[in-house]
Amino acid sequence: MAGDQSSVHEREHAETEFNRIVAFTDGVFSIAITLLVLTLEIPKGGDLERLLADRGNEFFAYFLSFAVLARLWLAHHRFYGSVARFDSRLITLNLFYLAFVALLPFTTEMLGNYGSQELAVALYAANLTIVSVAFIVQITYVYRAQLVRDDAVEFRARFAGPANWVIAIVFACSIPIAFVSSTAATLMWLSMFFVGRALGDLAARKRAPR
Amino acid sequence: MAGDQSSVHEREHAETEFNRIVAFTDGVFSIAITLLVLTLEIPKGGDLERLLADRGNEFFAYFLSFAVLARLWLAHHRFYGSVARFDSRLITLNLFYLAFVALLPFTTEMLGNYGSQELAVALYAANLTIVSVAFIVQITYVYRAQLVRDDAVEFRARFAGPANWVIAIVFACSIPIAFVSSTAATLMWLSMFFVGRALGDLAARKRAPR
Amino acid sequence: MAGDQSSVHEREHAETEFNRIVAFTDGVFSIAITLLVLTLEIPKGGDLERLLADRGNEFFAYFLSFAVLARLWLAHHRFYGSVARFDSRLITLNLFYLAFVALLPFTTEMLGNYGSQELAVALYAANLTIVSVAFIVQITYVYRAQLVRDDAVEFRARFAGPANWVIAIVFACSIPIAFVSSTAATLMWLSMFFVGRALGDLAARKRAPR
Amino acid sequence: MAGDQSSVHEREHAETEFNRIVAFTDGVFSIAITLLVLTLEIPKGGDLERLLADRGNEFFAYFLSFAVLARLWLAHHRFYGSVARFDSRLITLNLFYLAFVALLPFTTEMLGNYGSQELAVALYAANLTIVSVAFIVQITYVYRAQLVRDDAVEFRARFAGPANWVIAIVFACSIPIAFVSSTAATLMWLSMFFVGRALGDLAARKRAPR
Repeated sequence: MAGDQSSVHEREHAETEFNRIVAFTDGVFSIAITLLVLTLEIPKGGDLERLLADRGNEFFAYFLSFAVLARLWLAHHRFYGSVARFDSRLITLNLFYLAFVALLPFTTEMLGNYGSQELAVALYAANLTIVSVAFIVQITYVYRAQLVRDDAVEFRARFAGPANWVIAIVFACSIPIAFVSSTAATLMWLSMFFVGRALGDLAARKRAPR
Repeated sequence: MAGDQSSVHEREHAETEFNRIVAFTDGVFSIAITLLVLTLEIPKGGDLERLLADRGNEFFAYFLSFAVLARLWLAHHRFYGSVARFDSRLITLNLFYLAFVALLPFTTEMLGNYGSQELAVALYAANLTIVSVAFIVQITYVYRAQLVRDDAVEFRARFAGPANWVIAIVFACSIPIAFVSSTAATLMWLSMFFVGRALGDLAARKRAPR
Repeated sequence: MAGDQSSVHEREHAETEFNRIVAFTDGVFSIAITLLVLTLEIPKGGDLERLLADRGNEFFAYFLSFAVLARLWLAHHRFYGSVARFDSRLITLNLFYLAFVALLPFTTEMLGNYGSQELAVALYAANLTIVSVAFIVQITYVYRAQLVRDDAVEFRARFAGPANWVIAIVFACSIPIAFVSSTAATLMWLSMFFVGRALGDLAARKRAPR
Repeated sequence: MAGDQSSVHEREHAETEFNRIVAFTDGVFSIAITLLVLTLEIPKGGDLERLLADRGNEFFAYFLSFAVLARLWLAHHRFYGSVARFDSRLITLNLFYLAFVALLPFTTEMLGNYGSQELAVALYAANLTIVSVAFIVQITYVYRAQLVRDDAVEFRARFAGPANWVIAIVFACSIPIAFVSSTAATLMWLSMFFVGRALGDLAARKRAPR
């Protein structure tokens, strides 16, 4: 325990290192979000209008995943604003989380190309479920290992509060639902956006940061 | 309103967070601009000279989009130099803007491969129209929500001035024109470069920053 | 010698330049780790379930390489935290190292697609052997050329200690073993993860940083 | 003129903006260098050994371009260490330079796939000629417009000296030579590496920075 403590790095004392971890995360997010465009492909030759006509799914998947990655990044960004220290376990948890964030361009392509097959929808939902849970694990760990900034302890509800759980549970529930109706699963995700935002706003209003 | 105000972050107090948002934007721009090269593809085997001969369109599209993304980034870069605070709405507007910036490698590939079909030209113009308008919305919001630096208020004309509107309008007009003559639409874009620059220089000369 | 000394840059005096080199390295790592997702490809059309069924190898290769790149980055990150000065030779060594780090998405794709052929397994092991050795060369050079921070000299064992050698030797040994049994070679890598971590923890515990 | 002067930004006063430009350049370099790996492709299925056998050209092109981009980045990195101010013209010159740096993954792929056709070799040389000249133009402009740091004026020979011209001239000469013997052109590039380095070392030794 004491040995572990010794390898906890204070943000102020190791600002460069902390920034490097955060910059790495930002790098993965910005690359993954920009790689999404590679999921949109048109075969060469032929009539463009007809080729585009049956690509509605792909465009929907592109914008959905862009919005999802943007929101995940924002949540990560806000949360790490309240982190004061880091240790190697937090870095590992963050890397596990990033492995599934970086996978999203793949599940997005699958959703775009096979949106009518239930499996594609279920796997997309599974990807986001893992990402959501991995984020909750990070938050829980940071509060449990007391790595937060002193002035952020009181805002715990904002980050570790029910909003993240609601998101994770909805994504998890949409996995089996995808096999019944992929449209219903998709609508659940979209509602998530607005509900998640509303919950976040609510929490923020209750305990607004200075 | 007051509640919203409370979540406005001063640039000085949250320099790290501000820089992170700007760095994320720069990341998306630099990745998108470098991904453009993936739109240039040569099938393996065969006579290289002949393969390259009918790829003039693709090279034109590459250099056009490189120049467009470079100018967009410069404009973003200059504008954010005058932003003093940010709130979550500005971040959302910026992410919406980035979703269409990151789409440009796709519309560029379409323009390179299908430059002779009016639809490709029109969609490229539509992409840039949305980007231009999304940028104007950001500028307008920043000035309306008073997120600018105090010493930048007087330079409003430079950023929120007519130049951006001219660019957006020309791109919008080139959409229908593309269906009449794709060459005319392309020439409109190119003229934009010089007119846009001239307008910018004009505004800059009128109110030069210290 | 004296001439060489003169071009050694103190980290404090050239913090910006030092950070730029480190940021470049981080950039290559974050791009390579995010490009791994491009090794996962599904041909369009057909039954998704069957298409995914025989892609176990590819997913295994994706997560293995993500973990490998993450660990390499962490090791690089920790090591450079103890570097105080840099010279052009260290930069060159680091770039050589990066050339093989950036190659990993290729060998990963090969491992994913040809995991049943011994050659693919052997080449993946060869890639990691070169990376490990190139890292050891950097560490050795930094200590020999006295580019470390004064307070890091005593932690030499942690970075230049036996752990890195064990990793390099195991990867090197797995090359010939791959031709006998690719499964055995793969298991050697996986055991590396846990042994490498255990050795690192051991070294860290012996000489914990302040 | 005076108007132009007014928009020159001092590095110290606008450190953030300067860093953003440099970071953007680094971003393009690190992405381009990591995208090189995408030029290495193996068709799925078949005997891996035979597939790799005739890919020597591709690997040669990968490592050559990695080394070229690394050296270009280092030269850029060193040069910008002596730049004190920037103006919009320097930014434009830098972006022009980057457009051809970012093109290198394409010409690399061409060289890897069509190395036996003279045209591929000539175009690769042409790409590097343009990059070299665009770099010289930047250097010349920076010294002419007095954007250098005061203490760097005396080191002009190091950056604006003959070494860059030698490199540019050799690349330019290798274009016509490629049509006679692509091997001779390739050898010219490789010799460049050592001659260029020797010249650089020579200049550095003559006027070593503090």
